[in-house]
Amino acid sequence: MRAADTYGVSDGLPGYFDVAGAVRMGAAPTAAAGPGTAVSIPTGGMLPPGADAVVMVEYTQAVLDGTIEVIRPVAPGEGVVRADEDAAAGAELAPAGRPLRAQDLGMLAAAGLATVTVHARPLVTVFSTGDEVVPPETAELQPGQVRDATAAALAALISEAGGVPAAGGIIPDDAAVLETALRGALGGSDMIVISAGSSVGVRDETAAAVSHLGPPGIWCHGLAIKPGKPTLLAECAGVPVIGLPGNPRSALVVFRLIGMPVLRRVGGCTQAPAEPVLRARLDRDIASASGRLDVVQVRVSGQTASPVFGLSALLSVLTTADGYLIVPEDATGLDAGTEVDVTLYR
Amino acid sequence: MRAADTYGVSDGLPGYFDVAGAVRMGAAPTAAAGPGTAVSIPTGGMLPPGADAVVMVEYTQAVLDGTIEVIRPVAPGEGVVRADEDAAAGAELAPAGRPLRAQDLGMLAAAGLATVTVHARPLVTVFSTGDEVVPPETAELQPGQVRDATAAALAALISEAGGVPAAGGIIPDDAAVLETALRGALGGSDMIVISAGSSVGVRDETAAAVSHLGPPGIWCHGLAIKPGKPTLLAECAGVPVIGLPGNPRSALVVFRLIGMPVLRRVGGCTQAPAEPVLRARLDRDIASASGRLDVVQVRVSGQTASPVFGLSALLSVLTTADGYLIVPEDATGLDAGTEVDVTLYR
Repeated sequence: MRAADTYGVSDGLPGYFDVAGAVRMGAAPTAAAGPGTAVSIPTGGMLPPGADAVVMVEYTQAVLDGTIEVIRPVAPGEGVVRADEDAAAGAELAPAGRPLRAQDLGMLAAAGLATVTVHARPLVTVFSTGDEVVPPETAELQPGQVRDATAAALAALISEAGGVPAAGGIIPDDAAVLETALRGALGGSDMIVISAGSSVGVRDETAAAVSHLGPPGIWCHGLAIKPGKPTLLAECAGVPVIGLPGNPRSALVVFRLIGMPVLRRVGGCTQAPAEPVLRARLDRDIASASGRLDVVQVRVSGQTASPVFGLSALLSVLTTADGYLIVPEDATGLDAGTEVDVTLYR
Repeated sequence: MRAADTYGVSDGLPGYFDVAGAVRMGAAPTAAAGPGTAVSIPTGGMLPPGADAVVMVEYTQAVLDGTIEVIRPVAPGEGVVRADEDAAAGAELAPAGRPLRAQDLGMLAAAGLATVTVHARPLVTVFSTGDEVVPPETAELQPGQVRDATAAALAALISEAGGVPAAGGIIPDDAAVLETALRGALGGSDMIVISAGSSVGVRDETAAAVSHLGPPGIWCHGLAIKPGKPTLLAECAGVPVIGLPGNPRSALVVFRLIGMPVLRRVGGCTQAPAEPVLRARLDRDIASASGRLDVVQVRVSGQTASPVFGLSALLSVLTTADGYLIVPEDATGLDAGTEVDVTLYR
């Protein structure tokens, strides 16, 4: 109806309208509103010509066939969604630089954008190195062998960061073989990750192989992080290359802290995703050396965080933890009772 | 070496050891430790017979060919990872009831479990209903038509909760047609979601169609939630059926709040995943009716949360928000300055 025709109406003094017709869902209105003339409309129907407001059916009553009384006034635009109210022509429907969320997809669909141009998922080739490393499906280990725990776990973190993991396989401790394998992967990969053998000298062999792959080469070799010190960061012919520590726990800690953000950038994500963080209170002291960032796994119960201590080689420290906290470089530890931010594993 | 042989050694009084050989990575040791006899070992190598501890190379020095001096004592077990230290025989490697995390996959791989039995991803069939609803790829809308925004957005939420979305298509406002479509999907679906037409009477038609599908039938029809009041929850022949409100914003709010937890349960996930929650301070009042749970979208800047107000039909309220907060049933609103927990959209 016309809002102006409802001014001053009330329970005691209703306004009377002839009903000129009804709007059908999904169709153009066939009746028009006018002075003293209303049109029946379902929620979501198209506003008929002549009308500028909708009165809820609860505030009307049929008095005669084709006539209603209205007991509440409405303002112009009330009960109406303007055609440009959700998004005007020219409006940005979804920003670049972050994954499309469910509601973004809804908005794009509403605007008729059933396909959109997006960044490709980066392909990340994962190599494991070490004479002692054998595939996970190895049923019986020979003395001195370990199964490759890191590659499967890295694949999950790569997927979580929007990448596509590709298995580079297990490379023996031989710089020439490693260099050949890396060179073969360079053309088809958007990023390369090497979980390094941990034996003496192998670290340098990995660095040597990486340094031959192309400019600009190695950014840094060694980080002031625990666990994760023997980390290699490089860029070879435009491809980021990360050499991770040999033990699985250190490798996963470093990849989560450094590899995943790099990977997101490679995939066009400039806005870091929201992480589940819980504010909790430490239930015991944590020692830490100044000048080194410490990543400490914790179990969480209510608002209490309990550090999970254990050798850096132990994956169980990660599997039994609910999340981790960071002791910054300038701290020499955290006292029991300190409030900490725990980033929760999903 | 044998730890006992290092007791009492120091910088001023080193212990002397013959080096009987070197352990090779990935192979059984070929030399043994004994009284006054050590074996060279790389990190990750297998402990040779006779040895019960490892001294770091930094605390040794070669003095003659085949002889070293040791300047720090070690305790038995030092520098050694026991075979059962990460997981003993019989230990639980990963708990049931939650998605496998990266570190769980690493632990399973380390134990030789390259394949594990998991819950199947639930197949969720999504129907859109309404004479006014047309597919998103419709280039030109006829008067009164709207594109289906909800199905694409629901598909994303279903994937996020571990399900596989299946497109049931757009069903006209006809109870018999809807019932036939639902019946056809019932056998092959683990869950059914209907985004309901919003026109008068359609809500009841959806309920009628659902009530004919099988026992136990409708659990409830109408929730004390805003937005999301006209929500239908049912179980038909063992399959959860959720009828969502007709407008996309309400549908997405309700599905996130109720549909995703139900879906996770259907998929065997009994432990709710960690959500990113931010503690922030409201920058204005929020009104709310007592006896109703309100879901309010907010923008977040630093530690400040600003409500995004707008008609419940507007998807832009969701697309411009960073997250949402909940005003509980027993509150009549929240004052500016109140500390709130904002669940962040990912």
